[in-house]
Amino acid sequence: MPEPIEFYFDFASPYGYFASHRIDALAERHGRTAAWKPFMVGAAFKVTGSRPMTGAPIKGAYAGRDLARTARRMRLPFQLPAGFPHATLAPARAYYWLAGSDAAAARAFARAAYYAYFAEGRDIGQPDVTAEIAAVLGAESDALLGAIQEPAIKAQLKTVTDGAIKRGVFGSPFVFVDGEPFWGHDRLDEVEAWLESGGW
Amino acid sequence: MPEPIEFYFDFASPYGYFASHRIDALAERHGRTAAWKPFMVGAAFKVTGSRPMTGAPIKGAYAGRDLARTARRMRLPFQLPAGFPHATLAPARAYYWLAGSDAAAARAFARAAYYAYFAEGRDIGQPDVTAEIAAVLGAESDALLGAIQEPAIKAQLKTVTDGAIKRGVFGSPFVFVDGEPFWGHDRLDEVEAWLESGGW
Repeated sequence: MPEPIEFYFDFASPYGYFASHRIDALAERHGRTAAWKPFMVGAAFKVTGSRPMTGAPIKGAYAGRDLARTARRMRLPFQLPAGFPHATLAPARAYYWLAGSDAAAARAFARAAYYAYFAEGRDIGQPDVTAEIAAVLGAESDALLGAIQEPAIKAQLKTVTDGAIKRGVFGSPFVFVDGEPFWGHDRLDEVEAWLESGGW
Repeated sequence: MPEPIEFYFDFASPYGYFASHRIDALAERHGRTAAWKPFMVGAAFKVTGSRPMTGAPIKGAYAGRDLARTARRMRLPFQLPAGFPHATLAPARAYYWLAGSDAAAARAFARAAYYAYFAEGRDIGQPDVTAEIAAVLGAESDALLGAIQEPAIKAQLKTVTDGAIKRGVFGSPFVFVDGEPFWGHDRLDEVEAWLESGGW
């Protein structure tokens, strides 16, 4: 069985949202699965001196246009939430708490959280909002709100994030295929070509 | 006759080098031409607060890998010249001087300058090197060395650069199709899809 494709993303990353709609089918076409790994891209930005493209002069206007254009092409609902980008500790921790008992539930939650953020513009960084999203999928809200304050869950997210940075992850989405790194939603066609050809 | 595709690039831009090998054929497939417009991307970087990706922590290592991988896929010779990035005023000015009398000669020079920089690793920012490259194609060296110090030629490059920034150009390569902006070599497939479909 070949290794899963590793899919690193931040819940506040619009290109991560787009990639989340493609990565599983892409992996499946090549007999793979995708291992979803939410992390805190802001920690990587601190190391590289980056900031979200949407906030930069000139680049920001282009980013807005490119995001809308990408969404139209993919026929996905999209908005840049008011106050973007939000710190998304809550959904990232909730993901790992859910994944501890049910990987499929964690992934369903990730999809729902991305939808709430980029289709509905809700602030998923608020623990209450994260709990509400998870509750719709069957998770008990009080248990979730407690879990995302647990040291073990906090540490798990920190370990994933630190490990990602150590491996050279500096943006979202970021994909590894058998150790080969690909940055960005706009590298997914190349990821597909890499899988098809076995690399070059 | 539809509008030419506008192709903005900096002579020190490796992704511009890659794009220069695709843009004409891409345009031709859709009954277009490409208008090559070298500019000084560093002036745009000052506005946006950007810096070359190759110099950033973590990102730099990825960039080197991505560039080599892209070159292998395209079967193009490639190296990141020692001391990269160089200021490329000399070839950019030489381009506009040549274009004043012969557009085809200017384009042939641009290809040769990109080859000298990214295949051979020569510092094309040096006026002597630029003159030597142009001389191989038939341009008189002394005339070129004089021309790139002329106020009119300097002003022309500045006008193109300022105009590009005003239109929202902040990186290299940067393409406009009927006013629609696309940033990056990795948007060329999307440019192609846009031309095929008439946009979305």
